Amino acid sequence: MTFDDNTPCLAAPVSGLEIIQRIDSGETGLEEAYAGFANAYADKEEALSCFVTADYERAAERASAGPLRGLPVGVKDIIDTDDFPTRHGSQIYAGHAPREDASAVSLMRAAGGAVVGKTVTTEFAYFTPRGTKNPWNREYSPGGSSSGSAAGVAAGMFPFAIGTQTGGSVIRPASYCGVAGYKPTYGLIPTYGAKTFSHSLDTLGVFAATVPDCAFFASFLTGRTLESTALEKPPLIGFCPTSQWEHVSEDMREAMDTAMAKARAAGATVIEHDLPSIFTRAIDAHPVIQNYEAVRALAWEWTNHRDKLGPKLSETLEEGETITPESYDAARRVAKAARLALSNVFADVDILLTPSSEGTAPKDLESTGMPTFNKLWTLMGVPCINVSGLFASNHMPVGVQVVAPAMSDRRALQTASWLEQAIAA
Amino acid sequence: MTFDDNTPCLAAPVSGLEIIQRIDSGETGLEEAYAGFANAYADKEEALSCFVTADYERAAERASAGPLRGLPVGVKDIIDTDDFPTRHGSQIYAGHAPREDASAVSLMRAAGGAVVGKTVTTEFAYFTPRGTKNPWNREYSPGGSSSGSAAGVAAGMFPFAIGTQTGGSVIRPASYCGVAGYKPTYGLIPTYGAKTFSHSLDTLGVFAATVPDCAFFASFLTGRTLESTALEKPPLIGFCPTSQWEHVSEDMREAMDTAMAKARAAGATVIEHDLPSIFTRAIDAHPVIQNYEAVRALAWEWTNHRDKLGPKLSETLEEGETITPESYDAARRVAKAARLALSNVFADVDILLTPSSEGTAPKDLESTGMPTFNKLWTLMGVPCINVSGLFASNHMPVGVQVVAPAMSDRRALQTASWLEQAIAA
Repeated sequence: MTFDDNTPCLAAPVSGLEIIQRIDSGETGLEEAYAGFANAYADKEEALSCFVTADYERAAERASAGPLRGLPVGVKDIIDTDDFPTRHGSQIYAGHAPREDASAVSLMRAAGGAVVGKTVTTEFAYFTPRGTKNPWNREYSPGGSSSGSAAGVAAGMFPFAIGTQTGGSVIRPASYCGVAGYKPTYGLIPTYGAKTFSHSLDTLGVFAATVPDCAFFASFLTGRTLESTALEKPPLIGFCPTSQWEHVSEDMREAMDTAMAKARAAGATVIEHDLPSIFTRAIDAHPVIQNYEAVRALAWEWTNHRDKLGPKLSETLEEGETITPESYDAARRVAKAARLALSNVFADVDILLTPSSEGTAPKDLESTGMPTFNKLWTLMGVPCINVSGLFASNHMPVGVQVVAPAMSDRRALQTASWLEQAIAA
Repeated sequence: MTFDDNTPCLAAPVSGLEIIQRIDSGETGLEEAYAGFANAYADKEEALSCFVTADYERAAERASAGPLRGLPVGVKDIIDTDDFPTRHGSQIYAGHAPREDASAVSLMRAAGGAVVGKTVTTEFAYFTPRGTKNPWNREYSPGGSSSGSAAGVAAGMFPFAIGTQTGGSVIRPASYCGVAGYKPTYGLIPTYGAKTFSHSLDTLGVFAATVPDCAFFASFLTGRTLESTALEKPPLIGFCPTSQWEHVSEDMREAMDTAMAKARAAGATVIEHDLPSIFTRAIDAHPVIQNYEAVRALAWEWTNHRDKLGPKLSETLEEGETITPESYDAARRVAKAARLALSNVFADVDILLTPSSEGTAPKDLESTGMPTFNKLWTLMGVPCINVSGLFASNHMPVGVQVVAPAMSDRRALQTASWLEQAIAA
């Protein structure tokens, strides 16, 4: 599939669940399946730059037995591993070799996942990109900060990847790269061993070809049963434009309309659900909390290596320094009030449906796009899932976002999976 | 001061605030003051084993200008530093040299603190002691897990120290070592760079000779104004025996009686304040939350180095593995309900007064005592302060604990300081 001779489409996400099914039915061998991913890496990495470091051979040797069958996993390069260096997207950490695996990596390895490498992250998971290209069209951004994790799944280099989200770093790149992305309830995947940016917001999440793949993979990271059977009846969906609706592109308006029409066609009830004004205040509270915490989390870098930080991050940390504890405490109180108010919102609907991003990926490799439709939900700590399957007029993917109550992750994934099928129908 | 020829008392805590006052008044020089601490280290370290590694000379050279005046600070050896190794009290981390400082260390260095070394911690800040002795009598435990931080302040090796508390690892050793200890509201000191045991509970705290010293020192770690003037009027104190009162020793009963009598004599009103039964359930919820999280936080060690973990920790992690997500979620709901109930408790009193420990330090270097009177408050996330100044019949210190509402840390320290003076009167 080629849209333009100069920008061949390199997207070809592969479902790990399907591969496992084919292995179990004897249709394919494990080595053959693994080689498929390794070949995608060999063929496309130079064009896409998904990895900081990779070693498919060593990974296959190290992988232990387990339900993940030794299939390749990409790990965002702000998450520690005991075999690959962890550079946090910063020259400050050149050659930095952690002693231990992050908790999530250990749990995943124990389930039989093979860490094939460290995927490209923006600088400290903030905004400055590090060269990854969008597999659907290399002139477009893959989004960030989990750039390599999203793009690598989209390119079929690995069926599963781990990323993190503080603003919109899982859902946005999933939307841009046309893959499923799942940001769990805050704290559901242990964060130990991931570089902190904002401890109240940082949330580990996953990427895969489909929503059921995300649920399957995340089960091992959370130690919870997240896979599920089909919904008993179609969901009651609240279309949630939020106060940020003016920022959506025409493409996203159409994608949302299509998603809602397809959901209705599959039997769902869709009502519009405006949010009370506390949520607009919560959106403003997000950067206050994030930047206040970031200047503390990055205190060592800020004190000792200020000259090696990019201008955008430096600006944010400078601003973070001016935020008083009183402003921070006030922002936390707003967030708490909004979390309480959100319980009432979910009394009326099963899930909220809202854009995953303003539109398609920016045609600009110096940008990773904006977390406009993600920050609020990260702050609320609720599960968010990017549902892919829709495309814009420029042939680029555009995703819609399922948002559900805190700790209802299994149900949220079940509903997102239902929507994914409705959209594909 | 010697209680017994075989066990000379090596306790001689030094107030950093007093030293700074004497420097400012020209009464002493900075180098002379520093040498006082360095000499205490040279004289007593062999007898007490407060440090894993120390270098007073290098620390003095590195210290930057700032309100802490280059005075020595001890840092618990589960907290990363970019100059000393960080071993977490475990052979698994022999020679482990982190690239960066923990956030708290960077913030403290920026304020002019000199990290003179890494203080002894129990294994991964859990229960297995690593040889530190109590400066008041070397046959007694210093408590744990922040053993070296508490004992080093008590011995006058440094005026300030950083520790952590997940059960009772700041307040208990402070009580046993006769120094002030302050566990702030959960999250007030950034935890980035400290080894996680239980992310919902782990809280960084400080040790110093007096409560005002703790407030002064913690101001730099929190970025908040914690020092304060005297109380306008004596406090309304709720004597809080808790459901664990049967565990207090005769010595502790007397210490509590004395503290309350002295508080009354200084003008305070003291009423008995029983806690509703939800708090007994919260005490039971603590180990469920802690152990469930610990098996995930220590997933790498548990998977790869199980044979190098002590029996007590292994037992806890084995138990942690059997805790279901449902039990964990239920325990978190109990904790949340108890936190709400605690707001009502504080409608009636300014602070709660409760034992810091069951009694004096155990005469047993294989034990670090029990966190019986600490776990609940760590789970509640509220500020706790050990107030020293009382001694038991065996001449060992015994501390009482001030507990205050979340985020009222300044007021809590002010009240604890008032009580410290009342007890000294």
